Amino acid sequence: MSQQAEQMLDRHRETLDQAVKAIATRAFWTPYPESLKKYPEEAVKAAPKRFEALLKQHYALKVPSISGQVGSEVSPYGFELEVTYDQPEQGALIAAMQSAMPAWRDAGAEARVGVCLEILARLNDMSPDIAQAVMHTSGQGPLMAFQAGGPHAQDRGLEAVAHAWQAMSQVPTAARWVKPQGKHDPVVMEKRFHVVPRGISLVVACSTFPTWNTYPGLFASLATGNPVILKPHPGAILPVAMTVRVAQEVLEEAGFDPCLVSLVPDTADAPVTKALALDPAVKLIDFTGSNAFGEWLEQNAIQARVFTEKAGINTVIIDSVEQIKPVAQNLAFSLSLYSGQMCTTPQAIYVPKSGIQTADGRLTFDEVAGAIAKAVEAFLSDNDRACTVLGAIQSPATAARIDECRGLGEVQLDSEPREHPRFPEAQIHTPLLLKVDAAQKAAYSEERFGPISFVIGTDSTAHSIELAREVIGEKGAITLGAYTTDDAVAERFEGLAMDVAAPLSLNLDGGILVNQSAAFSDFHATGGNPAANASLCDQAFVTPRFVVVQSRRHARSE
Amino acid sequence: MSQQAEQMLDRHRETLDQAVKAIATRAFWTPYPESLKKYPEEAVKAAPKRFEALLKQHYALKVPSISGQVGSEVSPYGFELEVTYDQPEQGALIAAMQSAMPAWRDAGAEARVGVCLEILARLNDMSPDIAQAVMHTSGQGPLMAFQAGGPHAQDRGLEAVAHAWQAMSQVPTAARWVKPQGKHDPVVMEKRFHVVPRGISLVVACSTFPTWNTYPGLFASLATGNPVILKPHPGAILPVAMTVRVAQEVLEEAGFDPCLVSLVPDTADAPVTKALALDPAVKLIDFTGSNAFGEWLEQNAIQARVFTEKAGINTVIIDSVEQIKPVAQNLAFSLSLYSGQMCTTPQAIYVPKSGIQTADGRLTFDEVAGAIAKAVEAFLSDNDRACTVLGAIQSPATAARIDECRGLGEVQLDSEPREHPRFPEAQIHTPLLLKVDAAQKAAYSEERFGPISFVIGTDSTAHSIELAREVIGEKGAITLGAYTTDDAVAERFEGLAMDVAAPLSLNLDGGILVNQSAAFSDFHATGGNPAANASLCDQAFVTPRFVVVQSRRHARSE
Repeated sequence: MSQQAEQMLDRHRETLDQAVKAIATRAFWTPYPESLKKYPEEAVKAAPKRFEALLKQHYALKVPSISGQVGSEVSPYGFELEVTYDQPEQGALIAAMQSAMPAWRDAGAEARVGVCLEILARLNDMSPDIAQAVMHTSGQGPLMAFQAGGPHAQDRGLEAVAHAWQAMSQVPTAARWVKPQGKHDPVVMEKRFHVVPRGISLVVACSTFPTWNTYPGLFASLATGNPVILKPHPGAILPVAMTVRVAQEVLEEAGFDPCLVSLVPDTADAPVTKALALDPAVKLIDFTGSNAFGEWLEQNAIQARVFTEKAGINTVIIDSVEQIKPVAQNLAFSLSLYSGQMCTTPQAIYVPKSGIQTADGRLTFDEVAGAIAKAVEAFLSDNDRACTVLGAIQSPATAARIDECRGLGEVQLDSEPREHPRFPEAQIHTPLLLKVDAAQKAAYSEERFGPISFVIGTDSTAHSIELAREVIGEKGAITLGAYTTDDAVAERFEGLAMDVAAPLSLNLDGGILVNQSAAFSDFHATGGNPAANASLCDQAFVTPRFVVVQSRRHARSE
Repeated sequence: MSQQAEQMLDRHRETLDQAVKAIATRAFWTPYPESLKKYPEEAVKAAPKRFEALLKQHYALKVPSISGQVGSEVSPYGFELEVTYDQPEQGALIAAMQSAMPAWRDAGAEARVGVCLEILARLNDMSPDIAQAVMHTSGQGPLMAFQAGGPHAQDRGLEAVAHAWQAMSQVPTAARWVKPQGKHDPVVMEKRFHVVPRGISLVVACSTFPTWNTYPGLFASLATGNPVILKPHPGAILPVAMTVRVAQEVLEEAGFDPCLVSLVPDTADAPVTKALALDPAVKLIDFTGSNAFGEWLEQNAIQARVFTEKAGINTVIIDSVEQIKPVAQNLAFSLSLYSGQMCTTPQAIYVPKSGIQTADGRLTFDEVAGAIAKAVEAFLSDNDRACTVLGAIQSPATAARIDECRGLGEVQLDSEPREHPRFPEAQIHTPLLLKVDAAQKAAYSEERFGPISFVIGTDSTAHSIELAREVIGEKGAITLGAYTTDDAVAERFEGLAMDVAAPLSLNLDGGILVNQSAAFSDFHATGGNPAANASLCDQAFVTPRFVVVQSRRHARSE
């Protein structure tokens, strides 16, 4: 084990121990503060300037053999980044990574985990800088870009390291096997056990959460010994490239080949993901993105273990509430946050056509839909706050989709454009809320990515549950919200959650949103329905990334 | 949790705790004695008669809806079993199993594990009976049929239960999540976590080890909440059917639907495995058998997690030895045991053409090959012992293969038929040992299932290692044996083992054979090379069999 890696592990041992404890108890914990105030004021203030200094430049990383340059990122806030990146020659890169693998494997779990923890610590220090890059590629608002792109993403990376550490720790390095032979001397074998990586790991990042969805696969693979290729979305390269640079620096300092973490950027016109995914050396693939491509990977990259997070029909079922106002406010926040561009944003809100019971009497279906619409309007009435919460639309396709969907139901709340006070070019649109009947299944049972949601009139809560079961069974869901004041109905929601393998958020009416998922405690997606075949992060996310190779020999006589 | 299941867990708690400890330390341990003397003498003596009483009968199991009867097993010892079995109607069976699943899921890990442990305990009690059924379907000799078919298979089942228990225990049932909010009150969420099975599990059994290779998948899936369909090989139904009967009895006693473990037998003419494997409800598949079918499953049953144990080119590399005699004797036993019909039998034995060093001076290549041949002859010189060790050839295709392969090299030791003292109809053949040059790669780098092995002349040990790396890289291997008196060479073998992900047995020259694999200590196959994509049994074998579904809600104010 390299002395440097050993020191890295020593430095972060307490963090590791606490992370392992947290994934076991699922209690609240994080070493990476989500409050900007906990970071040096200078660093926070300097971040926009530091970001600007990166623009119109080449962003250099260690690359074994360069085949070209790419880079055409456009900030959703309305300007071109003009940053270029080297594109590695695929064959040479794979060969270099394979050559680097045995030393990384043989360094052992402690060295690898030490390196991973040091990478995460340095990423945490530069969270204000990462936030700038995330904001100006994903279009997230500044606070979300900081939290989700920085500390929350690092949490998810650390969580993966903790799972990997725990899994590897369950394999002893050696054993003495003494088999009794009755009156004769026992047979004694000395055994050794090695954690052996599967091969090259490909992590395909998305444009909306370029770090949060990327760090789990990166760190789960790296900690278990696999070299990692990061393939960013062409529209969100910079935050991934910054991550790779940190990883390469730490690897090199610890005496390892920096190309163990490599960036392979591409362009929308000349995508390289399929060629990478089908490379026989690639044995692990993590993907976040569209159902079409996720399913293509699952069906075609059969030489690899494929971990996908795709999309589904995120669902809310309203049976009854104490007070409609806090519920509507909570849902308004959920629908508005990052303009519905989260994989966790609710799309289908089932409400009985006969209305719902509240502590203040019954509300009609229209009153429920109206309350949600009104809460959204109120929440977004201040334009500055609205722009901060909504962020910008990442892709023109999403903006176009709002128009395409307007005719799918009765408009309860129309989407409207907003002008950002500092970035007038940014595409900002408030949520579109449509009312439909349960029978209009084609409208609400297709994923409509972006700020587009449906309030669906059903015959009853039982009917809502049946529809949710059907739609989620077919299309999947990453989140399931539900509201009821009746304990028996709550148990039925709990049963539904298990049946469709979607995590349930019950009666959220305060500071927690259905779209939020806390590392170390909440399992993000379950891997058990069509929206994702993996969870961030459980044991099944890490254990297939390595195999155990043993050796045995007779014990030498003593 | 059912009271019965609770009592079952109480009864076997000590066994479970010890099993969990054993998979962590990898030290020798078993609760199921491998010595016949540890079983009631009456039971052992009565077993052949009890087996005969099963012949020419219908073997009844619980089946939701019967579509027909099958059964045409032939003992490799030369007689027809004439046992018939009900074939369930697939759609009705799947529907019944899906209906039974929620109660099994909701019973919880403790109840399920209690039931699994009771099934295993009862299977252990009936080991002498299982041995008869295994012997007269697989063709194994009586002692091997007892050990591998009985206690060793039960060990592997228990090992899977221990892994499943450990994995499920790492998920807490509940958590209180308290997130500080600075000066404000913390946000407090109550969370619940549920272990949720993936769906119906299909375990496709093989004809040579109908219980040993079946119990890991059966118990890993059942313990984690999945109903299990056992699809036996048409030639080896009875041992699987006996297992299903015990499982159904225990499930019913514990208050669960017996069809949670169901048998789906078929015939060679009308196989049902593909239809079952592609059923959308089938989410887990365990398969032991041919590369062709294993790869078909991996490529086509993409709605399921597929765990395969196929075949490879099991390898021995001889660099140098202290004494050739004990090495040759050890290899002779390995080559003879069950006529090479083990997935672990060596096929390719690499020896430098320049010969090898021993404590008594150098031996030529021909002397090494001759010593192995001579050891086989000596080992099998007593016909009674030979028949016990060799067992019978399970399939006519295997017997035919011996003739087909004779021309592939220079015959060092020819295969000869033997006559069993009690079963003159049994097909018994001693090992065929061929000498070839390293250049004759087509001969030794294809799997030749049965008692067919090659001594391969190489340029040097370095050349042997390179060839092994190449052949195992392409075709895989379940075992790797190696001999050297040089510590530096031993380390190179250790490196080779890691590079090709094959478990290494070094310098075996005593009572342990390269083809033996001890539960709780030896990882059987690694899952990291083309011979198998799973290991019996590691964490990756159990964790993908369930997902975690959580719920969360605000804590009620206190």
